[in-house]
Amino acid sequence: MNELKNPFRTELTPDNCCFVMIDHQVGLSTFLTSIDPALLKNNILGHAKTAKAFDIPTILGTSWPQGPNGPTLPELIELFGGESVIDRPYVNFWNDETSKRAVKSTGRTKLVISGLATEVCVAFPAIAAVQEGYEVYAVIDASADWNPLVTEVTMKRLAMAGVVVTTWVAVLAELANNTQINGMHIANLLSEHMGQYSVAMSNYLGVAKNADMMKEQIGTPPLQAHL
Amino acid sequence: MNELKNPFRTELTPDNCCFVMIDHQVGLSTFLTSIDPALLKNNILGHAKTAKAFDIPTILGTSWPQGPNGPTLPELIELFGGESVIDRPYVNFWNDETSKRAVKSTGRTKLVISGLATEVCVAFPAIAAVQEGYEVYAVIDASADWNPLVTEVTMKRLAMAGVVVTTWVAVLAELANNTQINGMHIANLLSEHMGQYSVAMSNYLGVAKNADMMKEQIGTPPLQAHL
Amino acid sequence: MNELKNPFRTELTPDNCCFVMIDHQVGLSTFLTSIDPALLKNNILGHAKTAKAFDIPTILGTSWPQGPNGPTLPELIELFGGESVIDRPYVNFWNDETSKRAVKSTGRTKLVISGLATEVCVAFPAIAAVQEGYEVYAVIDASADWNPLVTEVTMKRLAMAGVVVTTWVAVLAELANNTQINGMHIANLLSEHMGQYSVAMSNYLGVAKNADMMKEQIGTPPLQAHL
Amino acid sequence: MNELKNPFRTELTPDNCCFVMIDHQVGLSTFLTSIDPALLKNNILGHAKTAKAFDIPTILGTSWPQGPNGPTLPELIELFGGESVIDRPYVNFWNDETSKRAVKSTGRTKLVISGLATEVCVAFPAIAAVQEGYEVYAVIDASADWNPLVTEVTMKRLAMAGVVVTTWVAVLAELANNTQINGMHIANLLSEHMGQYSVAMSNYLGVAKNADMMKEQIGTPPLQAHL
Amino acid sequence: MNELKNPFRTELTPDNCCFVMIDHQVGLSTFLTSIDPALLKNNILGHAKTAKAFDIPTILGTSWPQGPNGPTLPELIELFGGESVIDRPYVNFWNDETSKRAVKSTGRTKLVISGLATEVCVAFPAIAAVQEGYEVYAVIDASADWNPLVTEVTMKRLAMAGVVVTTWVAVLAELANNTQINGMHIANLLSEHMGQYSVAMSNYLGVAKNADMMKEQIGTPPLQAHL
Amino acid sequence: MNELKNPFRTELTPDNCCFVMIDHQVGLSTFLTSIDPALLKNNILGHAKTAKAFDIPTILGTSWPQGPNGPTLPELIELFGGESVIDRPYVNFWNDETSKRAVKSTGRTKLVISGLATEVCVAFPAIAAVQEGYEVYAVIDASADWNPLVTEVTMKRLAMAGVVVTTWVAVLAELANNTQINGMHIANLLSEHMGQYSVAMSNYLGVAKNADMMKEQIGTPPLQAHL
Amino acid sequence: MNELKNPFRTELTPDNCCFVMIDHQVGLSTFLTSIDPALLKNNILGHAKTAKAFDIPTILGTSWPQGPNGPTLPELIELFGGESVIDRPYVNFWNDETSKRAVKSTGRTKLVISGLATEVCVAFPAIAAVQEGYEVYAVIDASADWNPLVTEVTMKRLAMAGVVVTTWVAVLAELANNTQINGMHIANLLSEHMGQYSVAMSNYLGVAKNADMMKEQIGTPPLQAHL
Amino acid sequence: MNELKNPFRTELTPDNCCFVMIDHQVGLSTFLTSIDPALLKNNILGHAKTAKAFDIPTILGTSWPQGPNGPTLPELIELFGGESVIDRPYVNFWNDETSKRAVKSTGRTKLVISGLATEVCVAFPAIAAVQEGYEVYAVIDASADWNPLVTEVTMKRLAMAGVVVTTWVAVLAELANNTQINGMHIANLLSEHMGQYSVAMSNYLGVAKNADMMKEQIGTPPLQAHL
Repeated sequence: MNELKNPFRTELTPDNCCFVMIDHQVGLSTFLTSIDPALLKNNILGHAKTAKAFDIPTILGTSWPQGPNGPTLPELIELFGGESVIDRPYVNFWNDETSKRAVKSTGRTKLVISGLATEVCVAFPAIAAVQEGYEVYAVIDASADWNPLVTEVTMKRLAMAGVVVTTWVAVLAELANNTQINGMHIANLLSEHMGQYSVAMSNYLGVAKNADMMKEQIGTPPLQAHL
Repeated sequence: MNELKNPFRTELTPDNCCFVMIDHQVGLSTFLTSIDPALLKNNILGHAKTAKAFDIPTILGTSWPQGPNGPTLPELIELFGGESVIDRPYVNFWNDETSKRAVKSTGRTKLVISGLATEVCVAFPAIAAVQEGYEVYAVIDASADWNPLVTEVTMKRLAMAGVVVTTWVAVLAELANNTQINGMHIANLLSEHMGQYSVAMSNYLGVAKNADMMKEQIGTPPLQAHL
Repeated sequence: MNELKNPFRTELTPDNCCFVMIDHQVGLSTFLTSIDPALLKNNILGHAKTAKAFDIPTILGTSWPQGPNGPTLPELIELFGGESVIDRPYVNFWNDETSKRAVKSTGRTKLVISGLATEVCVAFPAIAAVQEGYEVYAVIDASADWNPLVTEVTMKRLAMAGVVVTTWVAVLAELANNTQINGMHIANLLSEHMGQYSVAMSNYLGVAKNADMMKEQIGTPPLQAHL
Repeated sequence: MNELKNPFRTELTPDNCCFVMIDHQVGLSTFLTSIDPALLKNNILGHAKTAKAFDIPTILGTSWPQGPNGPTLPELIELFGGESVIDRPYVNFWNDETSKRAVKSTGRTKLVISGLATEVCVAFPAIAAVQEGYEVYAVIDASADWNPLVTEVTMKRLAMAGVVVTTWVAVLAELANNTQINGMHIANLLSEHMGQYSVAMSNYLGVAKNADMMKEQIGTPPLQAHL
Repeated sequence: MNELKNPFRTELTPDNCCFVMIDHQVGLSTFLTSIDPALLKNNILGHAKTAKAFDIPTILGTSWPQGPNGPTLPELIELFGGESVIDRPYVNFWNDETSKRAVKSTGRTKLVISGLATEVCVAFPAIAAVQEGYEVYAVIDASADWNPLVTEVTMKRLAMAGVVVTTWVAVLAELANNTQINGMHIANLLSEHMGQYSVAMSNYLGVAKNADMMKEQIGTPPLQAHL
Repeated sequence: MNELKNPFRTELTPDNCCFVMIDHQVGLSTFLTSIDPALLKNNILGHAKTAKAFDIPTILGTSWPQGPNGPTLPELIELFGGESVIDRPYVNFWNDETSKRAVKSTGRTKLVISGLATEVCVAFPAIAAVQEGYEVYAVIDASADWNPLVTEVTMKRLAMAGVVVTTWVAVLAELANNTQINGMHIANLLSEHMGQYSVAMSNYLGVAKNADMMKEQIGTPPLQAHL
Repeated sequence: MNELKNPFRTELTPDNCCFVMIDHQVGLSTFLTSIDPALLKNNILGHAKTAKAFDIPTILGTSWPQGPNGPTLPELIELFGGESVIDRPYVNFWNDETSKRAVKSTGRTKLVISGLATEVCVAFPAIAAVQEGYEVYAVIDASADWNPLVTEVTMKRLAMAGVVVTTWVAVLAELANNTQINGMHIANLLSEHMGQYSVAMSNYLGVAKNADMMKEQIGTPPLQAHL
Repeated sequence: MNELKNPFRTELTPDNCCFVMIDHQVGLSTFLTSIDPALLKNNILGHAKTAKAFDIPTILGTSWPQGPNGPTLPELIELFGGESVIDRPYVNFWNDETSKRAVKSTGRTKLVISGLATEVCVAFPAIAAVQEGYEVYAVIDASADWNPLVTEVTMKRLAMAGVVVTTWVAVLAELANNTQINGMHIANLLSEHMGQYSVAMSNYLGVAKNADMMKEQIGTPPLQAHL
């Protein structure tokens, strides 16, 4: 059977994966603007809170935090605690024994990697980990680059190397699986981090009181009209 | 007082304006793609139905309908009847005595002009009519051009000449004025011609039955969370 | 032989495929704006009417229809009847036994999947069904996401997993095959749902009466002139 | 002297202006996507908190809140209290006597107007108020429309009518004037609502401890190199 | 009366205007890419042929033709002859006595100016000529700049200075006025220089023979269907 | 060895390939605007002339030429003669025996396919021919679609199916191989069909006379300055 | 006479203007990305060197340089010396007596203002200075904002207030006036700061040696071919 | 094991690769504008200096340097010396024995290729070299094309052929590996060639002196506020 048809045979579950968040540092996030800075920060925090909601082991990495790359985003420190962040001298997270050991010690075989910048901090360990048999997911919209062309190039490189590219909402939804059990995780995270879903939820709750009354007033709704 | 501060002193009402729809012909609408063709057709029909909803006198013009410009959009013929369309040999609608007389005979002093292309069919009569004392509105999104730069240039030219640029929804809303009286016109036209409003209306009616039940289930909504 | 060269060996025909339309709900369609809402609704209806034109078995799914996702688009209910819609507690349509059984009971081995959002509602069942031997087509322009980057990422993920990405017009054309037999399906659907084709058809019919006359008037057309 | 050279002679101060926020309702904000929904909500809240920071009198309006337009954004209710919101039957806020009186009773002659949608809810009262001698500012990025072309058209219409177009950060900065006195308002609001400024602030504080040490290590910085 | 409402009172006619084409040199046109190079060249030639079609006096200027700006486009030399090109040492065409005298000697009071780059070669003489009482039109799409922002800025500057911004097709259409007399000029120029119009013309002539036959075959066309 | 690394082992030469140009009809080219119409026509003609320059056998197809799709582009008829165009009742060129036989009779094993629209007229025969052992190249920029998303989706589908996507200039350059022998083909075709190359050539020849003189005047050029 | 037709009656000369560069600080320039950071820095330096080339008095301002706004760009300090930079507690440069006095002491009546961000640091003093009779030019592409919409809004506000919007190259060209005298300033600055002009200059000098030889080889250039 | 999962098994190191820079000529770089000319030149020089920083053998190629393609960028000649540039009569670098031998003589098995244009000068040798067992990297952002669609098509073709697409910063970072040893290479190259990193570095050094003082003044930073 063609293995390419199966990237990957099993779905992400809270029990089979580990999140790796590499170099989400304040310095880097000021000048990597392939995604609007407000949206990028929102996506990073939405992804981080997904880890907390489903108790996913999460490893954080930094490079040159005392230099212009700056310290890890304070909101991540607040969520995970500062001790979870591993500084390293190697560009490639996977070449750093301490970082790699932290991932291996989780015993998980699926790695969900995000980072700044995608072209370096995500791509290098993602490609390397695939070589050692890991199933690797790159969370493209919780990562960013100097400009959109760089991300486009990197996505192509990742796909060639067998890394699955995905998004933070897809990861959240795949982990939730059954909405009757995990639905509140989705609702809370989407309401907090997706502007559209938040107002949809407000709207939903707000109109409830008056909808029946209005339906009488306007009669048959004009919905059968085609666009 | 600076007259520029007052374009124009009075609002559009069903009693003070006339719609002029120039050269909305099928040939022209195939290759004037500054606006997506589906959206353009939607806007033209939304604008035309606004005229019908408020009984606004409407003059239609054509140029070279037997040639590659093609006949008037059949939906407009269906709405207004074929006899309302005036063919003319002049590029500028305002230079054609029959066309101009049709406008004058309405007795209205506010002209709401749309057409294909904006740069020629809207701009020329709009600028000319201002010279003769009319208050002219150009409905930019019920008009189109070879490419967006042409529309941008034309809007600047129109503004310099004292023509107010506007949109078909703004015209509809200005005519409606009091939603308790005219609200159904707005609701019907927006539901039929604005994709988003249509689904919003569907959603509004659809969720009414269950909203209260859901509110109990999910407890306090997560709306206090900041984006 | 390289199986990748053959996705897929046989063409879509009315007898070998089943349409799966997942979560085309009014709530979701208000805030998934990667495609312009007017164009998205047009494409969804064009795709749905393709199913009716060729008698393709079609399964509709919903998730949380009493909540902010809202009810199924009323136009789809009108086309297929409400009984065809299967609500499910699982994010992944393929993990829901009732939904999956409905697909299996059609006996078709080619699945044509569309849905809101592409990243979740299309991607998850598409990837899962490929694992079980189905040939899966994802109709990208009858689906939508929070923003275009999410669709781009998802298309790459789908391609890696062996899912063929396609469009609603390509599906229609592949099903029609012989235009002498099925041409009216194409003509009707394109005229109704592709703005450009509709005006082209109008133009074609409109100019017929006068073309010969005009040809005499303007003499040799200036077409030999190069652009 | 040319009055056009002076829109307007005096700067905005906390004592001379009033904020008018019209129809920032959850239903409308789901489908007015000319600005990314996350950024729009951020800008609306940043603008609202500017009012609180400088004690600016603020009037809120709604239209059809029991219908698909939905209730006022809950965050605004939380900031200003529900009693500050005036519902009205008129499309044009300025045509509603209660709404207009609320503005007049503030005694302010400069109006800072934002709303959903710009083409209707901002444009109509802004143009009308200028006629009555008010100096009106339209906060374009705390407002939104069906698509960017509509906003572009509306900005041209506003400029023609003598309305100053501006942004929420420019309003904040103009009110602050002296940063030694009001600087904390700017710093807090920008850090909370401008993603870039927030990380810049984090970075600034984070690198302070190590900068001197690093400067020794890397010697002469390569800053004289031209880009 | 507000003079701003009249830019300009009279229309362009073949008898009242002069074309000024400044620095359409091959070197400049390789690196001024605000408009796609193929489209820019097309527009420049379409504009030049308009001058020939209506016998408009046309002055061509160059600056530093022996240097990197390069010689005048050979197609322009072919159309107008090399003797019509005036080289000058001044950046601003209007500051060069020979160039200015050439314009003055035409006796025309309306100047239609295009050039490379808009920000310099069009803007400077256009603004200067307005000061001396000329009515000046800037043909934006037969001109180009380093990037689109520069053109946008320049259009605003031109409008402030009382220069009418326009397009080459609008100039052509304004000169034609009566299509029964001048229509062939329009048809020929648009067919040769607007890709869309050329194929429309081909289509129009091509379908004439068969349209009636097809109309019988497909019966009532599906045009009443709304988009 | 991984066959995917070799799509395809041998280069295109004038002796091993055949061009297939499907449905480049005037009706279709008016409303398929994913590429600017002027650029699309230019690319189609550049590609067609490449066939003539290297004596490549070329098959042209049409579908519904008497209907709204319109006749083949007159310039192609002029280049290849009308007898080379094969009309067919099948959507898929490859399902039409006459069309397929025409390709097979050339004896070439590499097919270079372009057409309108890419999603149907290029994609269907390209995918089918790969199944029968042909090496297929799809010339993306001599083809077009309703909008750019459709082309993007189609390119992904083609790549999955083992079709090489390419451009008309790359095809030209691959055929030329040795510029000392075939360089004039490249120079002529690029000058005629790439606006930039044409002006570059003009500039090159034009400045020759003066460069040495100028070099003396301006002294050492400021090229050592970094950007 | 309409004063609007004359913004401004006299051209910029080295003797009548003063450059005001406000808050070009390294912190601000990391997160104001409406213009690509590489291009922005290039434009700022090109503008600064224009001042040096023509000996224009130049005032530099900073705000909160010890905070996250950071120090002035080191390249500007190198050009003008640190003593030329005036720090101020006021947001509006014009409200700071020291800053304003520095401008006034130059005795110039034309102010050429650039800064970070345009919406605040350029707009406020520009509008204020116009009130006091200065002729003010805003150099839009040597300034930047949070996103392009903010710049667009600000340009409209500036134009309304009588500020001329311009570009750094237009300022350079206007100052040069006579290229026989000042041409080297233009050539050097454009070569150093406009990538395209630099390679054009290299190309010009590089091809000089071979053009005549090549002209013989390729015979008549294919320039008569229309695009 | 699936070889596609390993493109390529080993990382780039200074000892295992060779840079091939093909046809970075001044003529070509004026009209290949898929990337902004300023950014393209910056990337090319950043990539070239990476070679120097790590002592990577580098081969430069040219085609038709005496013609409109122009000479090699003078900055590259300055870095590598003119003797390193190999002119060739073949379009495909790999078909030229002298060029190919130069690569082979380096003994490196990983080729890092960039060039103008990507579709021809990069794609052809990259695809050919893969056939002979080389591991080939295409540096997309140090290359350029006529327009972005051409690059997009080419990237898909390269990926299909087994060529890894990458960026100049990713190449730099992969070569550096250990920042404690090679960090200065990264810092210098990024500061010199990435506008954002340069200002970040300036900011970092500039704020060091005052950060602690400021932290006291403003108290708890507002970083816990969510965006």
